[in-house]
Amino acid sequence: MTSQELFEQIRSKRSFLCVGLDTDLKKVPQHLLAGDDPIFEFNKAIIDATAPYCVSYKPNLAFYEAAGTKGWNALVKTVRYLRGHYPEQFIIADAKRGDIGNTSQMYARVFFQEMDFDAVTLSPYMGSDTAEPFYSYAGKWAVLLALTSNASARDFETLKLENGEMLYERVLRTSMDWGTEDNTMYVVGATQAAQLGSVRAIVPDHFLLVPGVGAQGGSLEEVARYGMNKRCGLLVNSSRGIIYASGGRDFAEAAGHAAAQLQSQMSMLLQKAGL
Amino acid sequence: MTSQELFEQIRSKRSFLCVGLDTDLKKVPQHLLAGDDPIFEFNKAIIDATAPYCVSYKPNLAFYEAAGTKGWNALVKTVRYLRGHYPEQFIIADAKRGDIGNTSQMYARVFFQEMDFDAVTLSPYMGSDTAEPFYSYAGKWAVLLALTSNASARDFETLKLENGEMLYERVLRTSMDWGTEDNTMYVVGATQAAQLGSVRAIVPDHFLLVPGVGAQGGSLEEVARYGMNKRCGLLVNSSRGIIYASGGRDFAEAAGHAAAQLQSQMSMLLQKAGL
Repeated sequence: MTSQELFEQIRSKRSFLCVGLDTDLKKVPQHLLAGDDPIFEFNKAIIDATAPYCVSYKPNLAFYEAAGTKGWNALVKTVRYLRGHYPEQFIIADAKRGDIGNTSQMYARVFFQEMDFDAVTLSPYMGSDTAEPFYSYAGKWAVLLALTSNASARDFETLKLENGEMLYERVLRTSMDWGTEDNTMYVVGATQAAQLGSVRAIVPDHFLLVPGVGAQGGSLEEVARYGMNKRCGLLVNSSRGIIYASGGRDFAEAAGHAAAQLQSQMSMLLQKAGL
Repeated sequence: MTSQELFEQIRSKRSFLCVGLDTDLKKVPQHLLAGDDPIFEFNKAIIDATAPYCVSYKPNLAFYEAAGTKGWNALVKTVRYLRGHYPEQFIIADAKRGDIGNTSQMYARVFFQEMDFDAVTLSPYMGSDTAEPFYSYAGKWAVLLALTSNASARDFETLKLENGEMLYERVLRTSMDWGTEDNTMYVVGATQAAQLGSVRAIVPDHFLLVPGVGAQGGSLEEVARYGMNKRCGLLVNSSRGIIYASGGRDFAEAAGHAAAQLQSQMSMLLQKAGL
C-alpha cells in the first residue's frame, strides 16, 4: 500500500484509527473459551464490529507468542481473515524487532511473505542494517520507534547529542534516508503531543503511528493539532479501550461502539483540517 | 543461574563457548527433511555433539518463527531437551525484543515461565521499562544490546552525546543500575575488540555476550585480551561456523569438531589468564 492509498482510505472512511489487537486469553470473554480457537474467534468478532470505523489493525505479537503454537496459529488466521474480508485494511505486525543481516531478512520473510502484513514495527538501535531487509518488499513498510510514550523514553530517546539535537531527532533525520514516505513510518507516543511538533518539523510528510491515546492518557485533539499534515499523516492506535470495552457477551458490540466514538471524533478533526 | 554458577561452569568445562542455534530448514541436511520434525532433530544432534564443549546455547528466534507453528514447536522441544539432558547449560532466547509494560511482561512470561530460558536479548532504546519486567524472575537474565558488530552500529550506538560519552557507553552506565551482575549481561560485538576495553572500563564485572567470532570476522584472542575479567566474564557465540560446519550426514560430528576446536583455544586463553 502506498501512503497515498492509505490517505485515500482515511479520507473515505473519515477515520485514522488503528485498532490494536492485544488479545489476551485472560481477558477474552468466558463464553469464547470453550471453543476451538478463542483468540481467533475473539479477533474475528472484534474485526467485524470495528472494521467500518478504522483503517488499520495492529496485532501485538507478544500476546500471540504468549499463547504458544495456538497463538501463532490464531495470528496467521487473523491476518488471513483480514486479507480476505477487509483487504483495504493496513495490517501492522507490532513486533518491535531490532536485528540485522540474515535475521532481519528472516523476519521480513515471515511478516511480509508468509503472513502478508503491510508493516512491521522495528527498534532502530542497531541502525540501517535493521530496516534494510524490510525495504526489499514492494509496498511494505518499516515502522521505526522514534519517541515513545513510556516514562523511561527519557533514559535514551531524549538524550542530547553533542550537536544539540536529541537522539530521537537524529533517529528521524538519519532514517529518513533509508526509505521513503511510502515505506517508512514512525512511532511517536501521544503523551508527548507537544513534541509531535518537533517531529513534524523533521519529517513533515511521513506517516506517524501514535499509540497512547486513551489508556495511556494522550488526547486525540492534541495529537491532531501537532501531528496532522496535509495528507493526515497519522494512524492513532487504541487497543484496550476498544477490544476490552466490555468483558461480557456484548464485547464485540461494545468494541464497535468504542471504535465508532473515536471515528466520529476523528471525522471532526479531519473536517476541521479541511481533509 | 547466578554469575558465579556460570563462571564455575566455564572453569569446569574450560570453555566460554555459546553455540548459536540459527537453525534454517534451507540449510538442514537433506536426509533429515523426511522426518517429522527436522528442526528439532537437527538441534538435538547438534546439542548432543557440542554440549561437552560449550556452556551455553542461543536459539535465534527469527529462524523458528520463520518456520511457523512447526518452528515454534521445535523451539519449545529444543529448550525442553536442553533442560532435561543438559541442565547446566545457560539458554539464551535471542529475541532482541524491545517493548514495554504489559507487552514486556508477556514476553518475560513466554521466555522465562513457559519456555524456561535463562536469558533473553533486549534492545535498550525504550529505556528501563523494557528490561524491568524481566528482572522479576529470580535467576533469569536480561541481555542488553550495547555495541553491536554490524556496520550500521555507527548510525546511533557510537554517536557522541553532549557530555562526550558515546550512546552505547551511556546505555552501559544507565542500565548498570537497572539490575545486577547476576541478572544483566551485555551484547558487545567481537569485531569491535579494541572497544571491548572501553566497555570493560565501565562494566568491569558484568558478563558480556560476544557474537561475531568466525563468520563475522572477530578474533577470539583479541576478545579475550580486551574483554576477559577475573571471572572470565565472557560468553563467545559462534553459530554458522559450528552448526553448518558440514552440510552432509556428518553434520553433527563436524559441529562437534568445530566446537571442540574453539573450546581448546578457549581453554588455553583461560589458562593464560590464570582461570
